Amino acid sequence: MLYFIGLGLGDCKDITVKGLEIVRQCSRVYLEAYTSILTVGKEALEEYYGRELLLADRDMVEQQTDEILKGADVSDVAFLVVGDPFGATTHSDLVLRALNAGIQYRVIHNASIMNAVGCCGLQLYNFGETVSIVFWMDTWRPESFYDKIKKNRDMGLHTLCLLPSLSRGRKIYEPTRYMTVAQAAEQLLEILQNRRDRGEELAMTEDTVCVGLARVGAEDQTIRSGTLQELASSDLGGPLHSMIISGHLHPLEVDMLKLFSGPEGLKTLKMTNSSTYVS
Amino acid sequence: MLYFIGLGLGDCKDITVKGLEIVRQCSRVYLEAYTSILTVGKEALEEYYGRELLLADRDMVEQQTDEILKGADVSDVAFLVVGDPFGATTHSDLVLRALNAGIQYRVIHNASIMNAVGCCGLQLYNFGETVSIVFWMDTWRPESFYDKIKKNRDMGLHTLCLLPSLSRGRKIYEPTRYMTVAQAAEQLLEILQNRRDRGEELAMTEDTVCVGLARVGAEDQTIRSGTLQELASSDLGGPLHSMIISGHLHPLEVDMLKLFSGPEGLKTLKMTNSSTYVS
Repeated sequence: MLYFIGLGLGDCKDITVKGLEIVRQCSRVYLEAYTSILTVGKEALEEYYGRELLLADRDMVEQQTDEILKGADVSDVAFLVVGDPFGATTHSDLVLRALNAGIQYRVIHNASIMNAVGCCGLQLYNFGETVSIVFWMDTWRPESFYDKIKKNRDMGLHTLCLLPSLSRGRKIYEPTRYMTVAQAAEQLLEILQNRRDRGEELAMTEDTVCVGLARVGAEDQTIRSGTLQELASSDLGGPLHSMIISGHLHPLEVDMLKLFSGPEGLKTLKMTNSSTYVS
Repeated sequence: MLYFIGLGLGDCKDITVKGLEIVRQCSRVYLEAYTSILTVGKEALEEYYGRELLLADRDMVEQQTDEILKGADVSDVAFLVVGDPFGATTHSDLVLRALNAGIQYRVIHNASIMNAVGCCGLQLYNFGETVSIVFWMDTWRPESFYDKIKKNRDMGLHTLCLLPSLSRGRKIYEPTRYMTVAQAAEQLLEILQNRRDRGEELAMTEDTVCVGLARVGAEDQTIRSGTLQELASSDLGGPLHSMIISGHLHPLEVDMLKLFSGPEGLKTLKMTNSSTYVS
């Protein structure tokens, strides 16, 4: 049996009881090591689980599948994934290869950023399509995610923006580059200016209410609500970050967002119909 | 401290290690008992957790909040929620009342149906707004959820449909009424006919690929892919059920859905651009 086990978002103890029991009885345990990171390192996980973890980087998962699947038809192999195994990234390819080799699989779910963002008080069923923001380069500055945000806002829906975390090689616990909420907000501000220059009707403004989230589910989780402009100068600390662009806000959602605004922030502001706060 | 602890979707052991440790050291433990159910009953949870669970029905959570919060400023109280505490239902009101009473809170996340549906192979970031389907009555037959499905499909996005589970009074582990995938599909077929009669251009047809999911995360989880028409005559067993209306399907998503179709189903069918399968 090949077990896909979600580790949740925080530390060693965010694995489920069921997941931990399976990890401890599997013959080999792989740790998927390229789509996300926990706030604790591999060594801490190994110590707590009482098992050696084999790092499975992108190359191994995509090219050396046979190694992962070896013997899984007669013994149990675990494949650990930060968050949920079918959350922000799916492992459909590995599922299909396993079945093709006559190996059954089972999924042990856990929280992923896709549902845990609900902790900021915005209701998950008021979210539209999730977007992924990418690092801009000198000559490659895609703006397509803004158009998705626009579609969501036109329907009054919130948008979860996943921010990249790029690990290089195998040193995944020392990520060299991840995008902060401030950087994502800066890119969005630039897009707004570009669109304004072109005379487009904007889907949002510098004053649209946004939420920055860092290390959701961890002890030092940080949530900050504010205008897009405010978030562009925020500092939410270490990775991972994600950001929400609000759509239409329900009064209870507003009350929750006020919990996460600074003293000069939303607490003293009022909401308008366009979900923009004005003083 | 007031702890909001997600129980996940399956049985006793889907709680996280962290959640279980907290449950065992709290002075009182409430079980939120109106928005969802686990496949095991309260007694099984009590035995495994080693703690008495106080049922918190809707009336208690909304009207008798003081009882839940009593003493939580000086000791620890746990509030258990099936799935994730901020998943399909949020508990913002309880959070705000706690803070207002000077009580801090903390959230222990877990899987919810909102992210666990990814196990069918449809990618979560290809989903649009989630819709809730309601039981129709003789004179109250709302069709608004169809319009949301239409908007999602117009953008090529999948739609997660949450199906109701109504518990009556305190006997929440003997739900008298929950909606099956077949019933939801029947309602949708009727809406399609209504719209066709009105001459509307349809967002989907009887042949649109849908996915029925039952007891996601439990040992006896059942997933069935098929056309809307096929799902209308499916039997996926006991609660809870949910349904997905597909949007544009990526080839890898098609391969995954084929795993869950019957022998006469999608395996022998081909995909067209409209995500409708035709033989």
